[in-house]
Amino acid sequence: MPKAEARAIRHGFPWVYANEMVLDRRTKALEPGSLAVLEDAQRTALGVVAVNPLSKIAARVLDASPGAVIDEAWFEKRLAAAQIHRALLYDAPFYRLVHAEADGLPGVVIDRFGEVAVIQPNAAWAERHLPALVAALVRVTGVGTVLKNAAGRARALEGLDAESGVLAGAAPKGPVSVRMNGATYMADLTGGQKTGLFYDQRESHAFVQRLAKGARVLDVFSHVGGFGLAALAGGAEHALAVDGSAPALALAREGAEASGVAERFETREGDAFAVLQALGGEGARFEVVICDPPAFAPSRQALDAGLRAYERVARLAAPLVAESGYLVLCSCSHAVDLAAFRAASARGIGKAGRRGPLVWEGRAGPDHPVLPQLAETGYLKALAFRL
Amino acid sequence: MPKAEARAIRHGFPWVYANEMVLDRRTKALEPGSLAVLEDAQRTALGVVAVNPLSKIAARVLDASPGAVIDEAWFEKRLAAAQIHRALLYDAPFYRLVHAEADGLPGVVIDRFGEVAVIQPNAAWAERHLPALVAALVRVTGVGTVLKNAAGRARALEGLDAESGVLAGAAPKGPVSVRMNGATYMADLTGGQKTGLFYDQRESHAFVQRLAKGARVLDVFSHVGGFGLAALAGGAEHALAVDGSAPALALAREGAEASGVAERFETREGDAFAVLQALGGEGARFEVVICDPPAFAPSRQALDAGLRAYERVARLAAPLVAESGYLVLCSCSHAVDLAAFRAASARGIGKAGRRGPLVWEGRAGPDHPVLPQLAETGYLKALAFRL
Repeated sequence: MPKAEARAIRHGFPWVYANEMVLDRRTKALEPGSLAVLEDAQRTALGVVAVNPLSKIAARVLDASPGAVIDEAWFEKRLAAAQIHRALLYDAPFYRLVHAEADGLPGVVIDRFGEVAVIQPNAAWAERHLPALVAALVRVTGVGTVLKNAAGRARALEGLDAESGVLAGAAPKGPVSVRMNGATYMADLTGGQKTGLFYDQRESHAFVQRLAKGARVLDVFSHVGGFGLAALAGGAEHALAVDGSAPALALAREGAEASGVAERFETREGDAFAVLQALGGEGARFEVVICDPPAFAPSRQALDAGLRAYERVARLAAPLVAESGYLVLCSCSHAVDLAAFRAASARGIGKAGRRGPLVWEGRAGPDHPVLPQLAETGYLKALAFRL
Repeated sequence: MPKAEARAIRHGFPWVYANEMVLDRRTKALEPGSLAVLEDAQRTALGVVAVNPLSKIAARVLDASPGAVIDEAWFEKRLAAAQIHRALLYDAPFYRLVHAEADGLPGVVIDRFGEVAVIQPNAAWAERHLPALVAALVRVTGVGTVLKNAAGRARALEGLDAESGVLAGAAPKGPVSVRMNGATYMADLTGGQKTGLFYDQRESHAFVQRLAKGARVLDVFSHVGGFGLAALAGGAEHALAVDGSAPALALAREGAEASGVAERFETREGDAFAVLQALGGEGARFEVVICDPPAFAPSRQALDAGLRAYERVARLAAPLVAESGYLVLCSCSHAVDLAAFRAASARGIGKAGRRGPLVWEGRAGPDHPVLPQLAETGYLKALAFRL
C-alpha cells in the first residue's frame, strides 16, 4: 500500500480504503471478513487486518502485531480492557461496553444491560467470529444472555443481513429496567432500535437534570423518556414527553411508574413538528425544552436538508421556552459538525425572535470513546442555550 | 455602519470593530468608555453602545434598546439574571457570576467566593461605571467585600491601568476557602492571578475524579491543586502536584490539609518540562496524569510555537502514564481550536510510542456561558486519552 497510508496505519489509523490497497485476484476472491496480514510497499508487515472486498473500508486493522491470533483469548483481552474502563466510571454494569474501533474491536458495538448484553456485529469479520466473541463476552462479563441486534445500517455496507436473534441464554421476557441518573428506564431489548435504550446521552441527561429543578419540562423526540425522566428524578415539577412512537411512550410511562414520578409525567404521541406547532398555538411555556431528534443528516448528501430541519426544530421550540429558560438541542448526525449545528440552532432561535448565550456543549459519554484520528466525526452533540 | 455588520448587530453580535464604523471627529474625541447610540447607514438606532476609540473593538453593545439608561438599576437586572442561572446550578455561592458578553456585561468578569466578589473590569466603559456596578453587585448578591483585579491583559488594549484594589468592604485576611467537588481549595484573592482560583475547570475536575479512584495521580501545572485535590477527594491513592510557583504550591498544601488528604498529597516545585523529564528518568508511573498548562498560544501569532509546546507536553507526559492509564491534556489558548489541540496532543503521544482512544472532551463549565456568535473561540479544552 502507498507510503502515506502505511504511515497512517503505523500511527493508529484503523482503516484501509478500497482505493488505497492493491487488491490482487486472490485478495478479491477472499470471503468478506477474512483475516490477512497487511503489508506496505516494501512488504513489511503492518498487522493483522480483516478484509472485506465488498466494503469501501477494504481492511480494518485488528492487531498491530502481524503474528496475532484472533481467537477467544484475543477477544477476552480486548473485552477485559474495555470492561475495566467502564467499571471505573459506573456503579453498575449498565453502559456501552464496546465502542468499536476505539475499543480495539472494529465495527463491533456491545451494550451491557446488567445480565444481558446486546451485540451489534456491524462488520463482516465480527459476524464470522461471532461464536468466539460471544464465548469471550460471557466469560469476561458473566452475562447470562447475549442478544444480536442486526438493525444497524452499516451492516448492509458490509454485505451482511439484518437478522437479529439470541446468541446465548434466553431473551428477557419483557422490558429490562435500567437505572441512570436516579431514574429508572425501561428498555425493550428485543423490539429493535425504536424501543431499545441509548447510553450516549447519559451525561447530557445529568446536566439537564441540574437545570430542571422545579421546572416544567418539555422533552421532544423523547423515545423512552431519556431527558424527561432524568429531569423528574432531579426535581422537575412536571415533564411532557412527545414522540411519534406509541411503544416508546408506553415504555416511558412504565419508566415513570418505576421511578415513582408518574403523577408528574405526561406523554403526547404525534409528529414532533406538529406537536411543537400545536403547543405554540396553545401558548404553552416551559422552563426547559429539550429536542433530541433522530439523525436529520445521516449522510453528507443529506447535510443541507438536515441543517434546515435542525433550524426548524430550533425555530419551533424556542417560542415554547419561558423567559430565562433553557433550550437544549441535540444532533446525532455524523455529517453535521459542532459549528454547523450551533449555527443552524442559533439561526432558528433568532428567527423565532429569541436569543441567548450557550451555557453548555455536551458530547457522548466516556463509555463511547473515539480514536483521535476519527474524532472529527464525534457524532453526538448537545447544546444548551439560555433564552 | 455597513449593512452586513448592522445585520450582525441586530442578530446579537456584540462588537463593532474600528474599521466597520464611521468615526467622525466628535466620536474620535469621545473619552474611552463613553456611551452612545449606534446607528445603521439609514440612521436607524441599533442600541446603546460603549465606545472606545483606543480599542480595536470600537463599540460594545450594552443594550439593544436605544433608550436604555445604564445605571445601577440596569446593572442590578443583569446581575440578578446572571445569579439566577448560577444559583440553579451550584449549591453554594462559589462560581463565575458574570462571564462578560454572554451575561450582558461586555468585558466584565465577576467571580464570587462566598462573601467576597472579585471584579475584572476589562473594558473602559465598565471602569467608568464601576461605582454603579459595585453598588448593584452588593445589593444583588449581598457580598461584604468587592475586590478589583486589574491584572487582565485585555485592560491594556482598552487603555486601562493595572491597579488592583478594594472597591467595597475589607480585603480578606489570608486565603479564602472554596469547596468544589468535595475538596477544599485555598484562594489568595489579593495576591493576583498566580494564586487566585479558576472556576472554569470544575467540570473537568469532576470527571477526572471519576477516573482517579485508587489511582496514583500526577497533576502538572497544578496551580493551587485543582485536579490533584479533586482526585484525592474522589479516592485517589496519592497525588503529586507540580508547579513553578512556590506560593501556589503552598496554597495547594493548605488545601490538602483542609480537605483532610494531606498525607496522600505531595508537591514538587520546578519547571514543569524539567520535572516531567526528571520523572521519566526516575521511571515514575501514574494511573492518571493531568497537564493543565498556561496559555501557550495566547495569540494567533503564537499559534505554531504554542502547538509545538502542547505536543511537547504530551510527548513528555505520555511515558509517565501506566498501561491503560489516563492522560488528561488541557489548553486554555484562545487561538488553538479543539481540532488543532487534539492533533498536537495525539502527535505528542504518538512520538512517545504510545497511543489510545479519546474518552472525553471537556469545556469550561456552565457558569462560563458564551454567545453563539463567539463560541468558535471556546478557549478552554480538556482531552482525556486512555493509553
